Amino acid sequence: MFEAAEIGNSIDKKVYKTEAPKTRGALLDMQRRMNERGLAVCVLIGGVEGAGKSETLNVLLEWMDPRGIQTHALRDPTDEERDRPYMWRFWRLLPPKGRMGIFLGTWYAQPMMDMFQGKPRADVDLMLDRAIEFERMLHAEHTLVIKIWLHLSKDAQDARLRELEQDSERRWRVTEADRLYRKHYDRIREIAEHTLRRTGSGESPWHIVEGADARYRQLTVAQIVLKRVNERLTQLAREASRPAPKPDRPKPAKINLLNRLDLSESLKRADYEKKLNRQQGRIAKLTRRLHRHGRSMALVFEGPDAAGKGGAIRRLIHAIDARDYQVVSISKPTDEERAHPYLWRFWRYVPGHGRMTIFDRSWYGRVLVERIEGFCRPEEWKRAYSEINEFEQQLFDSGCIVQKFYLNISPDEQLSRFKARQQTPYKQYKINDEDWRNREKWDAYEAAACEMIERTSSESAPWVLVEANDKLWARIKVLKAVADRLEESL
Amino acid sequence: MFEAAEIGNSIDKKVYKTEAPKTRGALLDMQRRMNERGLAVCVLIGGVEGAGKSETLNVLLEWMDPRGIQTHALRDPTDEERDRPYMWRFWRLLPPKGRMGIFLGTWYAQPMMDMFQGKPRADVDLMLDRAIEFERMLHAEHTLVIKIWLHLSKDAQDARLRELEQDSERRWRVTEADRLYRKHYDRIREIAEHTLRRTGSGESPWHIVEGADARYRQLTVAQIVLKRVNERLTQLAREASRPAPKPDRPKPAKINLLNRLDLSESLKRADYEKKLNRQQGRIAKLTRRLHRHGRSMALVFEGPDAAGKGGAIRRLIHAIDARDYQVVSISKPTDEERAHPYLWRFWRYVPGHGRMTIFDRSWYGRVLVERIEGFCRPEEWKRAYSEINEFEQQLFDSGCIVQKFYLNISPDEQLSRFKARQQTPYKQYKINDEDWRNREKWDAYEAAACEMIERTSSESAPWVLVEANDKLWARIKVLKAVADRLEESL
Repeated sequence: MFEAAEIGNSIDKKVYKTEAPKTRGALLDMQRRMNERGLAVCVLIGGVEGAGKSETLNVLLEWMDPRGIQTHALRDPTDEERDRPYMWRFWRLLPPKGRMGIFLGTWYAQPMMDMFQGKPRADVDLMLDRAIEFERMLHAEHTLVIKIWLHLSKDAQDARLRELEQDSERRWRVTEADRLYRKHYDRIREIAEHTLRRTGSGESPWHIVEGADARYRQLTVAQIVLKRVNERLTQLAREASRPAPKPDRPKPAKINLLNRLDLSESLKRADYEKKLNRQQGRIAKLTRRLHRHGRSMALVFEGPDAAGKGGAIRRLIHAIDARDYQVVSISKPTDEERAHPYLWRFWRYVPGHGRMTIFDRSWYGRVLVERIEGFCRPEEWKRAYSEINEFEQQLFDSGCIVQKFYLNISPDEQLSRFKARQQTPYKQYKINDEDWRNREKWDAYEAAACEMIERTSSESAPWVLVEANDKLWARIKVLKAVADRLEESL
Repeated sequence: MFEAAEIGNSIDKKVYKTEAPKTRGALLDMQRRMNERGLAVCVLIGGVEGAGKSETLNVLLEWMDPRGIQTHALRDPTDEERDRPYMWRFWRLLPPKGRMGIFLGTWYAQPMMDMFQGKPRADVDLMLDRAIEFERMLHAEHTLVIKIWLHLSKDAQDARLRELEQDSERRWRVTEADRLYRKHYDRIREIAEHTLRRTGSGESPWHIVEGADARYRQLTVAQIVLKRVNERLTQLAREASRPAPKPDRPKPAKINLLNRLDLSESLKRADYEKKLNRQQGRIAKLTRRLHRHGRSMALVFEGPDAAGKGGAIRRLIHAIDARDYQVVSISKPTDEERAHPYLWRFWRYVPGHGRMTIFDRSWYGRVLVERIEGFCRPEEWKRAYSEINEFEQQLFDSGCIVQKFYLNISPDEQLSRFKARQQTPYKQYKINDEDWRNREKWDAYEAAACEMIERTSSESAPWVLVEANDKLWARIKVLKAVADRLEESL
């Protein structure tokens, strides 16, 4: 697969002198249009040592308007990164709409290093497949991924490094890593071949570029970037003329997961107080173990308005050291959040080891309110199920205990709680016209919630359905479930 | 100073039942107005163990609209935090305009712990004075700081902890730390007294609240928050009617720091190539040492348009491993940046150990373009000098090597570069009407720059003035200065 990049491609000085300025002009024009259309671009630069990765990054930065570019050349993860899923560090660096992020050291670095160190191929392939999924999501979310691999033949690498080493002024450019990887050229070539073959299909192909001649390399990489971005901009222009998304109002089944819950479950106040203290005690002890075990926890609360999510959360955090949890109430995204892929705003709050994040509403908004109100396109909420499953699986794999609660109440109960809220001055802010409007779509919300629960329940991130007409019953059920899950996980 | 908080303040259940709902209503109304006026609020909760700090945080969260609140209960710093100035972790958590951040574990935690461990009083007092400076800056930048200290008498603390320990259901609330601090009650009281006395004046007084009675504590804290926020909102409403800021166009002196530079300095191409390689080699070797020494570097480039800042930066980074530097081009702030105090957007990019951040334009925009164009008020750019000096001092103290370059050219040289840019297609984006307009204010910019250099030059963050009419000369001067500074610092 690297043959075409070993034939000695080069560009002579004269051609370069006329081509480079043209290319720069085209790149700047491209940046302007990226900005107008809100297209984000990730340029990944990989390749063998000595092929000019770092120089390629510098040239791109030099030829474009640097205000639209962020460069990320990554070393080993920091401890904040190590405490979270592998992909967290990349999520936090994703460029916002209209900007370009250039990455040296990408999500392929770890799987390739693992292969080099002899990790079983199957495990590595799983990571590679994840990378493909990630890129598919980025593509769908208006982020173009351009993957460049700079190649050198063994001889060309030798020649390049020898040339540098013999030049007393430039010898410092050859690093220890260069010398190490040069020894293992054949092995690395094999690993690269496997990686590129497995991850080069579909929306984000690899572009292999011969790295021996600087002029050829620079112009070729720039041309690839230009071509891919312009193609995607044309596509997006076409897509922009599509009609606005329509609300989707599914009808509920006669009997479903939610309407078959026994909402008459209840608890007496005295019983409640005793049980509350008991469960809070368990949670207090167990959450302290999170630190020791290098684990974390993410809790999700969903359910109709006035189902008692806030009240349950308050009883829960009452048992936890305030330094160990964070409550995140999800409402409208900020501008920086809106400029990133949908899940970015939730990745921001992924807890580090020893800590817990409690989401009062969550990423499930995509398949509930956004679906029903027509805030996103059908293809967006439809693919959200698998994106969410993948997200939660990554949390689980990194040591995060995930648990999701759906608090359900009856329409009548909601009505009486709404009325009570209107009569209590300090609760009035909790209720507005929209809440009343949402009530009219009760059936659609219930049906969407059932579909959501069915499609996103898993061993690693289970849903707990909570009968919530009686607040006391609901709170104890939530607290006991959290304690049980902590106990079985630690 | 704690006497008034040891008299057994309490509120009976009946009063609480009528007062609490009123207070909640008032808090919600206050949040709405904070949002309208763009006021950010930091509530700091400190106090002795067992006085209910964590519960106070929970109650505030419960009584207000959680979507406007962020809570930050801090443990030990992470390594990303340890690698940077002490205040970095607080800067990154500052609430944006309209929001409230509630802090448990504040910038007072470290100095108080230091005192407890016997660090010399003078060193600690320096940290406390820094805290006061920081709060003064926050005040000026529309961020209100409310400092609450929850106090318990020794007997009340004993009683509280004993009560909990004897209750089998709630015993878990007493932690190891509680037991430790209880033993050292007198010492801690003394430390608290010193801290509060030294840092309690001016815009951000301490509010000492007796913590023994939960109802008293909750209502009192809420009332303090209400009162302080409402006062500040009234002040801001008054200030809002002030006239818009006026541009300030200082006249330059006949002879000043900049116009006395010898701009005829130049270098021959052959000389340049040799020197360039030499300095790049030095920088390559020296920057690798940053890691080993646990140091970092921040470089600032300022100067008129077309002075050659970008070109100098490119030659510089050519010598550095791409994983070790980041170039940050400063132009318009994002919305999230605009919602924070002025320096927040620069704190974002403070390098961790082993890394270098290169700012192409910087925080000095405040005393240059913002001053001259009237983008900020006179009091804002005037206080910026000391804010900037403080910022750079903190960088220096945390092991960051700071160096600032002012590249100067003559008006004629700028004119010919502007013309050349207009004739080179890929350079046209670099020049616009504003650049031409700025030329007309040349004298004012020069005078402002001279004042800036005089007021912000220091041993720990020196300015290097660069004669930049000859690009080759300028680049070598920059690279040599960086290499020299690295050498003397490592």
